[in-house]
Amino acid sequence: MEGTMQDFPLMVTSILDFAERWHGEQEVISREVDGETTVSNYRELARSARLTSLALRALGVRPGDCIGTMAWNTVRHMHCWYGIAGSGAVCHTLNPRLFVKDLEYIINHAQDKIIFLDAPLAAIAQQFLPNTPSVQTFIVLTSSSKMPKIEAKPGTTGRPKGVAYTHRSQFLHCMQLGTSNALSMGMHSTVLMIVPMFHANAWGHVFGAPMYGCRLVLPGPDLSGKTVCALMHEHNVTVAAGVPTVFGDLLLHLEKSGRKLPRSLTHINVGGSAMPTSMMQTYERLGIHAVHAWGMTELSPMGTMCVLKPYMQNWSEERKTAVKSKQGIPGIFTDLRIVDDKGKELPRDGKHMGELQAKGAHTTKSYLKVDKPAVDAEGWFSTGDVATIDEHGYMQITDRSKDVIKSGGEWISSIEIENMATAHPQVAEAAVVAMPHEKWGERPLLVVVAKRKGAVSKEAILEHLKGKLAKWWTPDEVVFVDELPHTATGKISKLQLRQQFKKSEAASQGRSKL
Amino acid sequence: MEGTMQDFPLMVTSILDFAERWHGEQEVISREVDGETTVSNYRELARSARLTSLALRALGVRPGDCIGTMAWNTVRHMHCWYGIAGSGAVCHTLNPRLFVKDLEYIINHAQDKIIFLDAPLAAIAQQFLPNTPSVQTFIVLTSSSKMPKIEAKPGTTGRPKGVAYTHRSQFLHCMQLGTSNALSMGMHSTVLMIVPMFHANAWGHVFGAPMYGCRLVLPGPDLSGKTVCALMHEHNVTVAAGVPTVFGDLLLHLEKSGRKLPRSLTHINVGGSAMPTSMMQTYERLGIHAVHAWGMTELSPMGTMCVLKPYMQNWSEERKTAVKSKQGIPGIFTDLRIVDDKGKELPRDGKHMGELQAKGAHTTKSYLKVDKPAVDAEGWFSTGDVATIDEHGYMQITDRSKDVIKSGGEWISSIEIENMATAHPQVAEAAVVAMPHEKWGERPLLVVVAKRKGAVSKEAILEHLKGKLAKWWTPDEVVFVDELPHTATGKISKLQLRQQFKKSEAASQGRSKL
Repeated sequence: MEGTMQDFPLMVTSILDFAERWHGEQEVISREVDGETTVSNYRELARSARLTSLALRALGVRPGDCIGTMAWNTVRHMHCWYGIAGSGAVCHTLNPRLFVKDLEYIINHAQDKIIFLDAPLAAIAQQFLPNTPSVQTFIVLTSSSKMPKIEAKPGTTGRPKGVAYTHRSQFLHCMQLGTSNALSMGMHSTVLMIVPMFHANAWGHVFGAPMYGCRLVLPGPDLSGKTVCALMHEHNVTVAAGVPTVFGDLLLHLEKSGRKLPRSLTHINVGGSAMPTSMMQTYERLGIHAVHAWGMTELSPMGTMCVLKPYMQNWSEERKTAVKSKQGIPGIFTDLRIVDDKGKELPRDGKHMGELQAKGAHTTKSYLKVDKPAVDAEGWFSTGDVATIDEHGYMQITDRSKDVIKSGGEWISSIEIENMATAHPQVAEAAVVAMPHEKWGERPLLVVVAKRKGAVSKEAILEHLKGKLAKWWTPDEVVFVDELPHTATGKISKLQLRQQFKKSEAASQGRSKL
Repeated sequence: MEGTMQDFPLMVTSILDFAERWHGEQEVISREVDGETTVSNYRELARSARLTSLALRALGVRPGDCIGTMAWNTVRHMHCWYGIAGSGAVCHTLNPRLFVKDLEYIINHAQDKIIFLDAPLAAIAQQFLPNTPSVQTFIVLTSSSKMPKIEAKPGTTGRPKGVAYTHRSQFLHCMQLGTSNALSMGMHSTVLMIVPMFHANAWGHVFGAPMYGCRLVLPGPDLSGKTVCALMHEHNVTVAAGVPTVFGDLLLHLEKSGRKLPRSLTHINVGGSAMPTSMMQTYERLGIHAVHAWGMTELSPMGTMCVLKPYMQNWSEERKTAVKSKQGIPGIFTDLRIVDDKGKELPRDGKHMGELQAKGAHTTKSYLKVDKPAVDAEGWFSTGDVATIDEHGYMQITDRSKDVIKSGGEWISSIEIENMATAHPQVAEAAVVAMPHEKWGERPLLVVVAKRKGAVSKEAILEHLKGKLAKWWTPDEVVFVDELPHTATGKISKLQLRQQFKKSEAASQGRSKL
């Protein structure tokens, strides 16, 4: 008989079992949807999660069934995640900010049987309920006295793909959070989980916090700078995770109110989109490490974190800032590479731009109910991002591959031009899209929203860009608009912009400068 | 088709692949067996490991073959570990301090085909070689000019059991090292790996250091306080791992030489046996966190680490020291419990003593070539230690189960009595063993080595113990000896002591005080 080691399936439920046994007294503080604060701990959380599992089984839930949750970050939502996992079912988070038609599509695609719901979101549920026949039961996360009335009344543009995580992928993914190369989350930490549990898996914090015995603060629905600041002070938060918008609001609140951040705060984990360099510098000046994370739903989501390597500590501030603005290096369970059109790996010199591909223990292999693999023959998943990787291993996103501009066979980064343009003091927002061009294939068009109408001219913008960009990267045309089109999740809709400008630009090709 | 995540087998070889790609420039500093220092990095280490794999395959090594290593901590030994793993073979470390007869048994039991060997250990190899017919090849880790001559000339007490780790168990085990609840090892760390690679898997540091991109310092064969201190200064070591003996030597060196430890040093990882409280306090006074780790070969080996929980920070120094002297709480991949004679779990109150059992991803399930499982029906592995677990989850070893004294149906901790006895200023060493007793079953016998012969009396020892131990724990008899018998690994042989005193004690039962 060969000697061997024990079986130990990597189940997310065993994370909470562990926290219950060895960090049972650690606090879980939750700001509920009615604004009241509750304080419990991992021992109680584990007990409630088990009761939730039992209740789900009593409702006829079977392993593999999909159970939806549409809720803010509260301890009740935590009960649902662990309770659903413990019942053997699949937890399916729903973003209440999506259009109702999208929610209907998503719920029908997953065939959700039951949906857990925060009371204030009942009005949304009421709208999609008539068109989601798989949903047999709603469970409202509230006390009986606050139960809302939900009545169904009779009633798709996007086709989002579903990513199904495994217990193993989630378990391994969240281990990143406690490592000292990333956020150093541990039992000495108090973690404010601002990133919503319906947004890209809350970046693994739901599992990472109990795994490392962290004190956890759940903010509920109010993510305003004022409330976030108050929560940080009240509970001596040491690390907070959220998108740049939230941290921008927080800075505005500090400016307006004259308040300061608590001295306990040492790290912020920033993802969702890149934090503007100036905002990052402001946080650094306040003595707070702003750690850029990059990822996507398909990567569970964390693919990279940006922490300086030790030999960079002696670099100039400017050079350090340049590294910190990048998306960072991957953790142990992820490998990354950039490839050209033919799938050939490109050099890691910080200059070559290529499609970013990922591989690893928490990267998607195939989408839910899609009948072909999401990876190539070698197992690489194409992220749809265009990036560089420098000689130190730091990856930087330069574009979405559908937004990159291919001019004369070379790629131009729309993001880099946008960053340069928004650095102009009179520019509120800017977007660069590719316009078809007979000679060069594509050329960049810069679309600008000025802070005040007429405050800046095309010539002033081009003068501002001069010397900052390679000549052939410089946009041929600058167009001013009153506002840019945005998607439901707040990103600039470049698709809509391209359609809008295709005709006018085609007509103006004669003005091309190259 | 159900959506799913990528396959990513947890192979230790992928740890070095990762370090090569993302921390390739990180230094690996090695003090070779001839005293010279070499500096390489993870990129070069990965390359050499691949060459080693190729060489092994060329030598006819097949997956599953056992390859021995008998070597000190050097970068060449690292090449062997990763090279053997990469060839699909099993790496089998040999402790050069064992008796030749034991080495013969171990090598024959594993059927080692090839043995990697440090040149200065050739004399040992020469002794066991005639009796280890499975060994076809020796590979000496040296340059050609320093090659020793090895000639075979023609030529078992213990029967150690073999533990075979899996890639998965090793991968998960070493993840503990980078978490901020343990040693916070990361790319900012410089790790001095004093614990030998042939001793309980070097506590996972061989895999943990590259996994987290740590700078690594390998000390070679000289582990004296002087050399350890010099290495710490020379390379700005931040964390060192070793047994209490090494750290005791280091303190003696500081005392004698008047040197100080470098300011870079923040943590020491102490295992193998418990560090005396006074030594721990000395390190704490020097501003260095002494982190107690407990484990055993069967646990890969790390089972617990002792770091204070945040709510303990405000406790009195005395109370904190009491916690730090314990063995600590387990990491995410290990569960522990204490059970009574019938296998029933005992309360976690810091008082109940029971046999310590372990379960988890890096705990042995079965020994090599032993035809029955090493775990019970529920999957628990019995450690052979007796321990308490307190209400905060901190485990403390009170005895080896074969050394515990069972008096009147209750357990008495031999370790606790020994600690009390050695605190007497005139006691050099002390051991407590169980003596058979007609009425109580067993009673403790205290065996003492005085600092100077006749410097302390039986009455003085008993007076010293008074009030420090429960009356029924107090030894009935104190015996003075010139020296205590020790095992090959330096531990007191209680088996031999018991045999030695059985007759005399049986005759003296009339003097029992209870």
